[in-house]
Amino acid sequence: MVTDWQSRAEAKRDAILKSLPEKWRLQKIPSAEEQKDVTGPYIQQFLDEQEVEITETDAVGIAEKVAAGTWSAVSVTEAFCHRASLAHQLVNCLHETFFDAALASAKELDHYYAQHKKTIGPLHGVPVSLKDQFHVKGVETTMGYVGWIGTFEGTKDDPRKGTFESEMVKELRALGAVLYCKTSVPHTLMSGETVNNIIGYTWNPKNRHICSGGSSGGEGALIGLKGSPGGFGTDIGGSIRIPAAFNGLFGIRPTSGRLPYEGMANSMDGQNSVLSVVGPLATTARSVKLLTKTILAQTPWLHDPLVVDMPWRDAEEQAVYDIVKSSSSKGQLTFAVMKSDGIVNPQPPVARAVAAVVEALTSAGHKVIEWKPPSHERLLAIALKTWVYDGGKDVHEAFGLSGEPLSTQIMSAYGEKPIKEFTASEISANNRDKRSFQKEYMDYWNSTAQETGTGKPVDGVICPVAPFPAARPEKYSYYGYSVFVNGLDYTSVVIPVTTSDKTKDQYEEGYKPINDEDKKVFENYDAEIYDGAHVSVQIVGRRYTEEKMLAIAEYVGGLIGK
Amino acid sequence: MVTDWQSRAEAKRDAILKSLPEKWRLQKIPSAEEQKDVTGPYIQQFLDEQEVEITETDAVGIAEKVAAGTWSAVSVTEAFCHRASLAHQLVNCLHETFFDAALASAKELDHYYAQHKKTIGPLHGVPVSLKDQFHVKGVETTMGYVGWIGTFEGTKDDPRKGTFESEMVKELRALGAVLYCKTSVPHTLMSGETVNNIIGYTWNPKNRHICSGGSSGGEGALIGLKGSPGGFGTDIGGSIRIPAAFNGLFGIRPTSGRLPYEGMANSMDGQNSVLSVVGPLATTARSVKLLTKTILAQTPWLHDPLVVDMPWRDAEEQAVYDIVKSSSSKGQLTFAVMKSDGIVNPQPPVARAVAAVVEALTSAGHKVIEWKPPSHERLLAIALKTWVYDGGKDVHEAFGLSGEPLSTQIMSAYGEKPIKEFTASEISANNRDKRSFQKEYMDYWNSTAQETGTGKPVDGVICPVAPFPAARPEKYSYYGYSVFVNGLDYTSVVIPVTTSDKTKDQYEEGYKPINDEDKKVFENYDAEIYDGAHVSVQIVGRRYTEEKMLAIAEYVGGLIGK
Repeated sequence: MVTDWQSRAEAKRDAILKSLPEKWRLQKIPSAEEQKDVTGPYIQQFLDEQEVEITETDAVGIAEKVAAGTWSAVSVTEAFCHRASLAHQLVNCLHETFFDAALASAKELDHYYAQHKKTIGPLHGVPVSLKDQFHVKGVETTMGYVGWIGTFEGTKDDPRKGTFESEMVKELRALGAVLYCKTSVPHTLMSGETVNNIIGYTWNPKNRHICSGGSSGGEGALIGLKGSPGGFGTDIGGSIRIPAAFNGLFGIRPTSGRLPYEGMANSMDGQNSVLSVVGPLATTARSVKLLTKTILAQTPWLHDPLVVDMPWRDAEEQAVYDIVKSSSSKGQLTFAVMKSDGIVNPQPPVARAVAAVVEALTSAGHKVIEWKPPSHERLLAIALKTWVYDGGKDVHEAFGLSGEPLSTQIMSAYGEKPIKEFTASEISANNRDKRSFQKEYMDYWNSTAQETGTGKPVDGVICPVAPFPAARPEKYSYYGYSVFVNGLDYTSVVIPVTTSDKTKDQYEEGYKPINDEDKKVFENYDAEIYDGAHVSVQIVGRRYTEEKMLAIAEYVGGLIGK
Repeated sequence: MVTDWQSRAEAKRDAILKSLPEKWRLQKIPSAEEQKDVTGPYIQQFLDEQEVEITETDAVGIAEKVAAGTWSAVSVTEAFCHRASLAHQLVNCLHETFFDAALASAKELDHYYAQHKKTIGPLHGVPVSLKDQFHVKGVETTMGYVGWIGTFEGTKDDPRKGTFESEMVKELRALGAVLYCKTSVPHTLMSGETVNNIIGYTWNPKNRHICSGGSSGGEGALIGLKGSPGGFGTDIGGSIRIPAAFNGLFGIRPTSGRLPYEGMANSMDGQNSVLSVVGPLATTARSVKLLTKTILAQTPWLHDPLVVDMPWRDAEEQAVYDIVKSSSSKGQLTFAVMKSDGIVNPQPPVARAVAAVVEALTSAGHKVIEWKPPSHERLLAIALKTWVYDGGKDVHEAFGLSGEPLSTQIMSAYGEKPIKEFTASEISANNRDKRSFQKEYMDYWNSTAQETGTGKPVDGVICPVAPFPAARPEKYSYYGYSVFVNGLDYTSVVIPVTTSDKTKDQYEEGYKPINDEDKKVFENYDAEIYDGAHVSVQIVGRRYTEEKMLAIAEYVGGLIGK
């Protein structure tokens, strides 16, 4: 029997597919067994030469080419609409397309350029994709909920339906960006896999046996397939960094209050112990920087009451470049490496990627010490409580709108029905515990000044984003490596390092899992399945170090050849 | 019958009094009827000439004189210990004294100076008083609770008892400040009057018929009597600004996250919808600036996980000076004035002070428009909810430790016993409402760019801190003028303007109160009682505008002769 939610979900799924121009539809979608990797040559076969050239140029390069008059905004937009259409058919990464509106903006931009002989802003003609939490006028936001179809965040007659735009969307338009699609998310947003009852499962384009990550998994997959040069996701437990890492992209999880979240849809909105933050993912570090820096140039602190009055600080960025150019030993960067958090050890490809970054940095003359922080266990317990303060009320209400079932991934976090909510006192106690842990961690970070040899504490901490290159479906069992960063509200950048290699990446003979959680991760490793998957690391910085960490991402990316 | 809490309170009260050196004890304390105003000549009679000179020099002047070698840190410390001792006897403003420790630090500072021919830091030898929320080693923190006597925040065997120091205390010591006393607060901190079962009631030294304000009321009274050149209070609903205003002082309520609150005692600690903030009060604007700027120079963001990485920004301060020096009309400052919030009208002296500031600014060539913001009623309801999220659990537990009764002022806020706590969902809803109001207010602020003639929105909003010059005992009936600033998390500076004058300050003939709340304030006005009381205003700036607002405070203070 087809229930109401099923037919509504199917209608929406069809509508997404039908929104892709007929000329760009694929006759046949190969299975993962037939075609594991759909990036590179596979997707290129459906594009012409100029489309390939455009879509394989990064956001910075596109901005330059359009500003130079080499490419029109329209031709760039068309190329990305085409490639995004292919991407969606291959891995289910889109929730909304609005190609006509995008082409109309592109035309206006070209017209402006022709008339004024200059760009409208630093993102003039650059296509930017958006996670399906951003409100864009004339476009729906479902966030993966069947019950949100045809509504504004679940409310049918809300006057904002179809007209409201998130603050960031307004700022991107003012910068000249071309908005053209919104990307898939797991319903509730609280998963490292992207799955919902509308589009199904978003697969990893580099390896369609594994997930694209989540919750900004559509962004990860789309940008991974170069169907977008860069886009914005959000991160409350790893949701920018996980898809960036799993798709071989650069990304940043800024400190809360740096970039504007104002006017976006969210889960458990109003929970303010651990805030979700918005940030960019892109194919190059310099593109992530461009997207961060240009948004800050829009003075978001005058438009979002939670944003801090802090423009892009060139001096903080330059300080990194000055150090890496200097040859003095006092002038080196210093890092710590956390090979394991002591709770779950990373699988072999991830351990190899972490080691490769350490090796690259030490070879370049920088110092890397061991990170021995206060146990993350306490912090993870604190952070995970914030996800269930309301006992699941908010997400269960959203499911209740349509009667749709929870995915297995979400069921494991939120159960079949809401449970008892936290009281104000319990929330306060958790906030105090969190602050106390943050203080302890901060003091530990300061204490590394004794070890670095520079008299200053480490500049960043190199560690995994997840214990695996990417999770296999329904096997995302451990979030500790991403969540600790949210609990501390640190700035973190993701850097792609390598790909899994079945000939190199094996657990050592007789490996003994350190506990049950580690055992799960150990048992879910399969060198054959993972072969070819992207492997990335994150470098974690202190609060409000976006300029510094992006400079480090660019530098380290260069060192390891990305 | 003398109960246990009464004898414990009395013993503590006696201990405070006995901690004042015998030589500084007053034979007789005149009643308010006998001696309304104990500032100026009255208190001076008990001091020698040099003590008067030292204690009537502001913090900046003291720092200069000590740095020049004119005064020793010891002589400065002794003078302030003496004057603070007199102050406490006259108005009950101290909870703790630690003069011996202060003199020992002063001696060390003098020794350092003699040896190195330079100061240890920019506050070398400057006495700084602290509200009784700061933990200082070897000194108790009762926060006015009988049940906290002999404990660490109510816990008897806490290892931090007697040894722990708040982050700010460490930073002040590093700057060379001399710490010597902690000042009175209302139990719970949630009152604009300072009253508790230990020290009783802290009176306004300029007019002992009225209150000294709260909750940093001991700071206000002590600095008002020049028993301290400057000190630190905290503000969650006006607690820095109210005592600053009521005692003719300058003060600043910074945006949350600017100055370090780490390691301080608090009420409802962990409630994080509206955060209490720490900030200085002093006799001059430049001293408030000195205390703010020097703390920021200690990089508190490396020691307090809630502080934002934002050093003192000279450019923001200089921009104000550049504008006021410029003669161009485009270069003027622009303000808005909120003569009334539409809920309660200010009493005549306050209305006159607001008008005087507007007149001074317009005469100096600056523009002042009318402030017509979204109704504050919504915001006040949101902010007041945050005070009772836990239904009074935290404060009732503190009272329960000793069985002491609540003061009338606190009973009206927290009742006889705890009530139902807010749930996580209710707190989230309130957080969403708050953010939405903040956004609306921010947009209104931006919109004033259309009215100012400079193309920029107003630089600040001039308005009352309270509807009265100071409250009469048990008549602090309306907090709207201070609380709206906390709800919006704006930076606000207090500027003393004038004193109440019974010959000038009368309600207009036939004044009709606009509602019941206004009626209370109207009926509580008495020109005779208020005669001579300080009258102040606040100028409210946007978030994170401490440098700008302190420059404005200094400039406006100069314009009106303070």
